[in-house]
Amino acid sequence: MRTIDWVDGAVEIIDQTALPAELRVLRLTTVEELIAAIQRLAVRGAPALGVAGAFGVALAARRHAGDPGRLSQVVREIASARPTAVNLARQAQRTAARLPSGFAAVLNEACLVRDEEIAASEAMAARGADLVSDLCGDRPRMLTHCNTGALAAVAGGTALGVVLELHRRGRLREVIASETRPLLQGARLTAWELGNAGVAFRVAVDGAGPFLMARGEIDAVIVGADRICANGDTVNKIGTYAHALGAQRAGIPFLVVAPESTIDNATPDGTAVQIEDRRADEVVAGLPAVNPAFDVTPHELITAIVTDRRVIRPPVSTAESDTR
Amino acid sequence: MRTIDWVDGAVEIIDQTALPAELRVLRLTTVEELIAAIQRLAVRGAPALGVAGAFGVALAARRHAGDPGRLSQVVREIASARPTAVNLARQAQRTAARLPSGFAAVLNEACLVRDEEIAASEAMAARGADLVSDLCGDRPRMLTHCNTGALAAVAGGTALGVVLELHRRGRLREVIASETRPLLQGARLTAWELGNAGVAFRVAVDGAGPFLMARGEIDAVIVGADRICANGDTVNKIGTYAHALGAQRAGIPFLVVAPESTIDNATPDGTAVQIEDRRADEVVAGLPAVNPAFDVTPHELITAIVTDRRVIRPPVSTAESDTR
Repeated sequence: MRTIDWVDGAVEIIDQTALPAELRVLRLTTVEELIAAIQRLAVRGAPALGVAGAFGVALAARRHAGDPGRLSQVVREIASARPTAVNLARQAQRTAARLPSGFAAVLNEACLVRDEEIAASEAMAARGADLVSDLCGDRPRMLTHCNTGALAAVAGGTALGVVLELHRRGRLREVIASETRPLLQGARLTAWELGNAGVAFRVAVDGAGPFLMARGEIDAVIVGADRICANGDTVNKIGTYAHALGAQRAGIPFLVVAPESTIDNATPDGTAVQIEDRRADEVVAGLPAVNPAFDVTPHELITAIVTDRRVIRPPVSTAESDTR
Repeated sequence: MRTIDWVDGAVEIIDQTALPAELRVLRLTTVEELIAAIQRLAVRGAPALGVAGAFGVALAARRHAGDPGRLSQVVREIASARPTAVNLARQAQRTAARLPSGFAAVLNEACLVRDEEIAASEAMAARGADLVSDLCGDRPRMLTHCNTGALAAVAGGTALGVVLELHRRGRLREVIASETRPLLQGARLTAWELGNAGVAFRVAVDGAGPFLMARGEIDAVIVGADRICANGDTVNKIGTYAHALGAQRAGIPFLVVAPESTIDNATPDGTAVQIEDRRADEVVAGLPAVNPAFDVTPHELITAIVTDRRVIRPPVSTAESDTR
């Protein structure tokens, strides 16, 4: 089952706001519906957002074929529906480059984006599992934050794809899934995926991770990314940076897993990234809140970045070739 | 209004599980009721737990006056109702030392414990506010974790007492209250106290604090303590350590405020403290969880410990005199 796909002339997504209570598929036939789904996090995760952007341009190409001005505007609306994950704008723009060739060409490109993300997940899982076993030995206890499984991609996943591959290989002991406030992508989505796969796991509050590391109960931290800057600074779900600080102090590996499509060499470092601030009522209804959806992990806290093509060990620039 | 007091022959507490929806006073007439209230966190916070322990011994002295064996056992049950905060066992034992003199002497001692905590709160507020202004200048933005206000003491509070004193002096800009999962003492209790006092505040998820510090939006972190070890290692609500790591990296002060009654020179360091593990269903109903209620902040991450008598600057031992 794919998290997002083009089915019979429309975009179908698993509604991630309904999980784990209900596995509900939404059928999105207009750009407006797609943008709303992106903004309320019914579809989320950098690779999945990239595919959503690509399919969104296909929806736009069909609807506004005769109106290039309107079409350009709609593509901009898709690309900027959320600001932080680079994949959304990148894959929307890549797909939009085919607009002069018509709807069929646009849809073909969007399906290519989808297929590349599926292939990237497979490549990351294998390379990442090899690296974890190299760094941590047999059957490590892994902490992960947010959701980076199939639900964040099309199938497979990024960091959680690596974890699931370790499980398939019989080389994983346990996963600690941090709950990931405010919207609980860890407790709702990662726990659901791990449970489905039969992986031993426990949930922890977000503030507990660094202490569990200090107590010697975690062998490595593994997370995804929404944007990786040219210097390796990694933007990911709020709470990631605190876990990176904990890993550094505990002397355990901190690993980022993301497809090449998440690397943004046009952004020099984390200070240049727009961090999405979301509504206060996502935190606690009725109270004022500061609610940044992402944070920046400085590259020097990252042991390695695993992509579908290579392992990058900061401070090596993400632009340099480091194929493994 | 006092969080805990002896009123007409029984212990009265504000039920902290009911806030902020309802300000409900519970009247506890037996040791069993008191222990249950402690264990479900209807009364919590190291100073308040100390007073609860003292009044619990008074309840026991009245009930079991003729049975010294039973009385000793009940005192042990009170002292060990929760393991981590030193105040509970310490004040229970201190009060129990008066048992040979009878109920009136025991109750008198328990009321003395209460009065000392009230006086300690006042002293900490003044000394802590002076220190914050010295370190941070005028109108700092303070981050605090968990609840350390009047609800954690009898009146006044520890870290939040300092914050409220800064507000009274017109020398506070804003408070970021981390929500403090799993039981939301920050979002429920600290937000309620700050709102009542008219202090400008915003809530943040626990994972956001270190990033807000990195962005330059916090001038100091101020927290309470459940137990301060001889070397200055500080045991406090889970999530405290992650905030200390963030403060260190951001180069901002990390301040602990606690009465002398929380300093435990019999415990050499944080590794010697029993950390309470609480039920999995406090985190997410129906999921396996690891749920340590506290963590250890190593003394080298602490800028200063403010008590009712002095300012301790680790690595100075908490046993040494450093009166200010």
